Amino acid sequence: MSEPELPDFYNDLDGSLRAAWALLARGAKDRKTPAHVPVLATNGPGAPRLRTVVLRGCDRQARRLRFHTDRRSAKVAEIEADPAGAVLVYDPGRKIQLRIACQLSVHIDDGLARAAWAATRDFSRACYQVMRAPGEPVGDPREVTVSAEASHDGADHFAVIAAQITRIEWLYLAAHGHRRAEFLWQDSDWKGRWLVP
Amino acid sequence: MSEPELPDFYNDLDGSLRAAWALLARGAKDRKTPAHVPVLATNGPGAPRLRTVVLRGCDRQARRLRFHTDRRSAKVAEIEADPAGAVLVYDPGRKIQLRIACQLSVHIDDGLARAAWAATRDFSRACYQVMRAPGEPVGDPREVTVSAEASHDGADHFAVIAAQITRIEWLYLAAHGHRRAEFLWQDSDWKGRWLVP
Repeated sequence: MSEPELPDFYNDLDGSLRAAWALLARGAKDRKTPAHVPVLATNGPGAPRLRTVVLRGCDRQARRLRFHTDRRSAKVAEIEADPAGAVLVYDPGRKIQLRIACQLSVHIDDGLARAAWAATRDFSRACYQVMRAPGEPVGDPREVTVSAEASHDGADHFAVIAAQITRIEWLYLAAHGHRRAEFLWQDSDWKGRWLVP
Repeated sequence: MSEPELPDFYNDLDGSLRAAWALLARGAKDRKTPAHVPVLATNGPGAPRLRTVVLRGCDRQARRLRFHTDRRSAKVAEIEADPAGAVLVYDPGRKIQLRIACQLSVHIDDGLARAAWAATRDFSRACYQVMRAPGEPVGDPREVTVSAEASHDGADHFAVIAAQITRIEWLYLAAHGHRRAEFLWQDSDWKGRWLVP
């Protein structure tokens, strides 16, 4: 029986790693792919904390993903207390899951943050102009909508979260047999091996 | 301007909690909704660990979600070492995100596990018949496909993961203003309040 639907990377370790990076690179650019909205986990006090985030940048050379946030958000304090993080991408259409282990860092008023802020649009900036901190209790949710001040551009609430990747676990779902592999960054290179799916 | 697209639960705390449970209940039954495949986080050694899981059951009375797994998988050992967990559901079509804090437990050969196994189909059972443990390194991924033994039904590799929910954070994305709320299980009831989105 022919297997026309199997992709090039099937049974190919190097090809699987390339496909993983291609998925992330596309996720940073294409709003319509599930990789545009991965899940970011922080090592919160006593328990993991999860949230959907928007993937704003992917730099394979630096092994780095980039997200934007409000510096008053709980995840900023969580990352400052413990940089160990994880990112999950699941694309059901492409049948690919990436489980990513990473070291997280918060960037405020440095080169990375200033370049990212300069590239944001007015629409995105509005989120950072809300005077009340995200996650703060509020009696009436309608209060929040009117608390933005147009005179305030929001830059002082803006932060970049960088995720430097140390491990990628690849999973490809196929009727012919799932494929799972891990890629560890060791000695300045990616070391890959297959795992039982 | 009329706002015909706003749902009943908008600006309604009790309604938002009901909508959260409705999303989970539907996720357990309907494969086509994103809530069918939430992200489960364990508190792994030193870092959170994430993976997509299939939501197999939702019991509002017991505040419990149910997942199935291979008892040899890493997450079983992680849960046995630390029960603190989290679940994330994100439904972009419905514009709802649920951030769930929970206590995880592993069920093997007890009433919950036996009932769940009895309800699985042959197709699902095949996953548990693989002789090699998931996550184990393997030289050639094609070895794994042929290692199932048809004579072995898989029950001795099957486990249920139960997630008892202690907190639900609700987020509804709307052009008229996002709505975020938290619901804490306290004194045998859900205590809800609005948060700044």
